Amino acid sequence: MIIEKLAIVGTGLIGGSFALALKQAGVVGEVLGIGRNASSLAQAQTLGLIDRAADWAAAGQADCILLAIPVGDTEAVLTQLLPHLKPGAVITDAGSTKRNVIAAARAGLKARFGDFVPGHPIAGSEQSGPLAARADLFQAKKVVLTPEPDTHASALAMVQALWGATGAQVEILDAVLHDRIFAAVSHLPHLAAFALVDELACRADSDAFFRFAASGFRDFTRIAGSNPEMWRDIAVANREALLIELDAYLTALQALRQSVAVDDADALLEMFSRARAARENWMKTQDV
Amino acid sequence: MIIEKLAIVGTGLIGGSFALALKQAGVVGEVLGIGRNASSLAQAQTLGLIDRAADWAAAGQADCILLAIPVGDTEAVLTQLLPHLKPGAVITDAGSTKRNVIAAARAGLKARFGDFVPGHPIAGSEQSGPLAARADLFQAKKVVLTPEPDTHASALAMVQALWGATGAQVEILDAVLHDRIFAAVSHLPHLAAFALVDELACRADSDAFFRFAASGFRDFTRIAGSNPEMWRDIAVANREALLIELDAYLTALQALRQSVAVDDADALLEMFSRARAARENWMKTQDV
Repeated sequence: MIIEKLAIVGTGLIGGSFALALKQAGVVGEVLGIGRNASSLAQAQTLGLIDRAADWAAAGQADCILLAIPVGDTEAVLTQLLPHLKPGAVITDAGSTKRNVIAAARAGLKARFGDFVPGHPIAGSEQSGPLAARADLFQAKKVVLTPEPDTHASALAMVQALWGATGAQVEILDAVLHDRIFAAVSHLPHLAAFALVDELACRADSDAFFRFAASGFRDFTRIAGSNPEMWRDIAVANREALLIELDAYLTALQALRQSVAVDDADALLEMFSRARAARENWMKTQDV
Repeated sequence: MIIEKLAIVGTGLIGGSFALALKQAGVVGEVLGIGRNASSLAQAQTLGLIDRAADWAAAGQADCILLAIPVGDTEAVLTQLLPHLKPGAVITDAGSTKRNVIAAARAGLKARFGDFVPGHPIAGSEQSGPLAARADLFQAKKVVLTPEPDTHASALAMVQALWGATGAQVEILDAVLHDRIFAAVSHLPHLAAFALVDELACRADSDAFFRFAASGFRDFTRIAGSNPEMWRDIAVANREALLIELDAYLTALQALRQSVAVDDADALLEMFSRARAARENWMKTQDV
């Protein structure tokens, strides 16, 4: 047992899977759930993700409170929670961007900010909601924590221990570096996929094109099936890092365009070969 | 039985699967194989993809000859074959670009060009070689034929019947339109994936980025694992159409960059939503 009482704000895929994994690992006692959607909360209870629904006053008495909510809601939720927080309660989150969550947590938690541990589990799925929750969602997946200089070491240790119990590998990163890395390996690819599909979809004769799209197109654009609201929030929250990545990608595509335009077959072969080799090396390190 | 004798030039994934499907359907008698690689040819025979290896003189006596080779080799292969072609022999191909193949076939086949049926099966895999061949590779997949005004109707009918017997859906397109469509739905995504991986790989600190890439990145970049030589040839062969698509994509990405730069959350949400809806509609039409 690591903690007696866990509260989950947002009992969907991520929050529900976290609760389920910790219950199965036997490291938490009671799990409370908070959510705006009453039927989703009832479903989470029926599925055994949480033991009971709770209000802010009850959630504030938990030893650890996970926010698994849209990052844009962080400040409002923490402002609600603050008056009820028991001494020593630790708060953590699961948002895809970290600098804006840290700013929201500072604003929402004020003097209690030291008890907040910013986190980002690198696991997910196009599915969402309590029904999608799985005890093994985080097994062998990375979870990035981005503590600030004033984050309490004890709070960080608790959150590390909890994620460890889910089977995840915990990594510590600076929040700025986190946002820069995920702008490159996650946010940019999502935006590039959305843009490619949209560019085709907006053509008057788009059906003629989609009709012949096949499995390569399906995989390249899978992430364009992701939640538009969530990705709008991420793009806005991580604007600076994302602009740097967009510019780097635009420059790379311009160079590629130039190679095509001047029939520089050698440059094309070199670039494609480098890319394939880099991807093969990367795949060897992956269990995805 | 549609034809007595089939010859396959290039007995890898595509050529081998075509032969296997037609043998299983019972629509061909003997299958001859030609290839530069003796061990690959022997393997194709051991696997039952072909009945025996043949030379150009023997292949020229086949009723139908499929070229399943890099598109850049088309003219040289047809020049070899021409002196041996029996009257009425039909030749077809499986290349990803069609305008350049048609030009190569005109140059290589001269007065016999009317017996050539340009074709492109929309099926494939990152795998290649005889071992990857499967009798059901083309089942329910599209095969595009792009006959020219001087293609013999009888030749087209034979090739249509053969592809039909593999389980594929045959579609007829103008070669220019074919190249334009595939520039958009296949060639551009491949180049965009290669460019994204290469841009990351060329950074001094690329390991820090690849380390956190996950399943979204894996799927977006799957096609960057494709054969570099084949994609160099495609990019060169389809330059004009590809430049149009690259420019359209660059324009779309620039507009997206602008929305991010000015924090236009509404424009981002609108674009992401349109893209997701278009992809969902497309997926409903797909069996991929």
